[in-house]
Amino acid sequence: MYASHFSTANIPYGIASSAAHPGKSPATRIEDTVIFLDELVKHGLLKSLPSEVTQAFSESTLNTLAAIPKNTQKETRQALQKLLKNPKDLPSRSTAPIQDVTMHLPVSIGDFTDFSCSKEHVLNAGEAIMKKRFLPPGFLHFPVGYTGRTSSIIPSGTPVTRPKGQFRDAKGEVIYGATQQLDYELEVGCIVGKPSALGDSIAVNNADEHIFGLVLLNDWSARDIQGLEMMPLGPLNGKSFSTSISPWVVTLDALESFQCPAPAKDLKVVPYLADSKTDNTYSIELKAELLVGDGATTICESQMKTMYWSFRDLLAHQTSNGCNLNTGDLLATGTISGETKTSHGCLLELTKGGEENFKIAGGLHRTFLEDGDSIRISASCGDGVGFGECVGKVLPAR
Amino acid sequence: MYASHFSTANIPYGIASSAAHPGKSPATRIEDTVIFLDELVKHGLLKSLPSEVTQAFSESTLNTLAAIPKNTQKETRQALQKLLKNPKDLPSRSTAPIQDVTMHLPVSIGDFTDFSCSKEHVLNAGEAIMKKRFLPPGFLHFPVGYTGRTSSIIPSGTPVTRPKGQFRDAKGEVIYGATQQLDYELEVGCIVGKPSALGDSIAVNNADEHIFGLVLLNDWSARDIQGLEMMPLGPLNGKSFSTSISPWVVTLDALESFQCPAPAKDLKVVPYLADSKTDNTYSIELKAELLVGDGATTICESQMKTMYWSFRDLLAHQTSNGCNLNTGDLLATGTISGETKTSHGCLLELTKGGEENFKIAGGLHRTFLEDGDSIRISASCGDGVGFGECVGKVLPAR
Repeated sequence: MYASHFSTANIPYGIASSAAHPGKSPATRIEDTVIFLDELVKHGLLKSLPSEVTQAFSESTLNTLAAIPKNTQKETRQALQKLLKNPKDLPSRSTAPIQDVTMHLPVSIGDFTDFSCSKEHVLNAGEAIMKKRFLPPGFLHFPVGYTGRTSSIIPSGTPVTRPKGQFRDAKGEVIYGATQQLDYELEVGCIVGKPSALGDSIAVNNADEHIFGLVLLNDWSARDIQGLEMMPLGPLNGKSFSTSISPWVVTLDALESFQCPAPAKDLKVVPYLADSKTDNTYSIELKAELLVGDGATTICESQMKTMYWSFRDLLAHQTSNGCNLNTGDLLATGTISGETKTSHGCLLELTKGGEENFKIAGGLHRTFLEDGDSIRISASCGDGVGFGECVGKVLPAR
Repeated sequence: MYASHFSTANIPYGIASSAAHPGKSPATRIEDTVIFLDELVKHGLLKSLPSEVTQAFSESTLNTLAAIPKNTQKETRQALQKLLKNPKDLPSRSTAPIQDVTMHLPVSIGDFTDFSCSKEHVLNAGEAIMKKRFLPPGFLHFPVGYTGRTSSIIPSGTPVTRPKGQFRDAKGEVIYGATQQLDYELEVGCIVGKPSALGDSIAVNNADEHIFGLVLLNDWSARDIQGLEMMPLGPLNGKSFSTSISPWVVTLDALESFQCPAPAKDLKVVPYLADSKTDNTYSIELKAELLVGDGATTICESQMKTMYWSFRDLLAHQTSNGCNLNTGDLLATGTISGETKTSHGCLLELTKGGEENFKIAGGLHRTFLEDGDSIRISASCGDGVGFGECVGKVLPAR
């Protein structure tokens, strides 16, 4: 259903397998056809590419490919665009319909940082929890963030088991049980390509060199568990149970036509965040749908370009203290919300912390997620470039 | 200088290399002699051991060894204790004096969680920062913690570059510069052996099965950077620049004789934290020294057994929401402080946030760490079992 996201203007990368091609291997996608890149190599169709690329196409993650210099990546993209104009002409073993393919995590992720890039999300979340719209003390100075769990990052399609944890019940007593406030967060993440060394900082103006591409991300959150644990060290068990990402990495080359300016900063930033690139972010239309039974209800439509902090800012800030980035590291935006009620990227905002119901298809209502519900996040830039979807279904607590 | 920590009652594991043995490989240590385990295999000295062990001895991390079932690990330990009674009788290629050896990170670490196990540390830190002794709302219910950065975990001996970051100057203005409040934190970490699957929880009474062993840890912290960023998502750049660990993993088998009870809990805990083992923690004497020039000043002496939460509690809590643990994951205690001024495990506590100087050798004073200073953490259980040291020298900001 996302054929239009995957024209030859896209050429995303993922890790796929199928019954006929059981090993996990690098793939790309044209409309609804998945192309196994190692098969193209075996058939001698990518002889023009350097051996570092064809070698990377034989691995079980995209990490080696992600670390290859940008000019070689551009050359690879161009060769694939030329070759894949008509996927039906490709050797049959090299292609498979998307529905016959299993998509895996695209990269081995060493570290995951989730930032707080959306001013609206922060203001709305503050209102929902503390009944007060305010920005944390650091917000206008740098992207505030926390380190997330990598072991529980799962590819789109993997179900999410409702987590148990400790939280306060209606009487204020601390209990242990299945979360009563399971939420999603609509986010976009970037995957690091070229690494940086411990002690080095990445200049904001050089940050694109280190970004392989973007994926959609759902930072599943248990608000009640999170609420009791966050003071003072931030979220842990309220989020570490599962984080979903979309399987196709859309490269910065594919996103080049969709570059645009991020909002002007309210405060003068310190030099390491002074970005001299005008079109420093991307126009990406984001959507979240709640799927209940056969019904799909759009619960959020928001825009990447409204984020106060850009991916360039995230890399510059993360490394401003000398912290090293490895290929495959994931840095994400946090919930992407806009100003209107139709653009709230999580249920905490939409239901004001569970105080307001919202209507969904079939005459039903929700405050937080119920067992059997699914969240489907999708995103498109237009002109044949999009991200497909990131979907996950809630299973009952064990 | 730590020969007495490494009797045949210990048999720790580490990853070593030397000029004569340049590949990183598993090793153990008897007094000041390092023994390369792959060489013992090559010389046919470990024929009694299963092939999964001898195979694990040929790898460049301890991960495979750590995941081997506990009974096989016990058998391995006994075989090594017998064989290594007189290291001088071993083939010469298999041994090297400790000073000729480079020690590396013992495991590939997938995720790192740092908890807050010390009630005294929390009370003292609250007093230093907020002028108020209080426990966070979750503290008595579960071990509060945050996910730490893994890319910047370094082995003992690696210098630490003073990080830069944003913080408030004396006038309250936010500036970017080298931290003025560089601190250490004396901690102990446990390394996961047997993994757990996503969705599973580890019962507190079964947690030892999943712990390979313990290491010392210094969670270097920039208090000024941390102070501005922590609200509401916890520490990031104030800690992600470097975390040091000691190179020798002391196994739970070696620590068995030093088991003892953790303090009684102030509140009844939820069932997943109800530990029926009486001797659920370890008696480990910890020491931190500040090294300035040729002088060493002991700045902290504290005890693992005073921690409110045990490693068993940490594993049970981390997985209580279904979060999966991988072999090599690191879970640490947070700063280990006692009740007296001589047992404060970080400078924030010792100097009340930099307000009080403390005297060091040579008639000097310190509030926080200066360039050229080193912190040396060491720990001993007595009876020939200890951890050696975890040391790091502060280099000037770049």
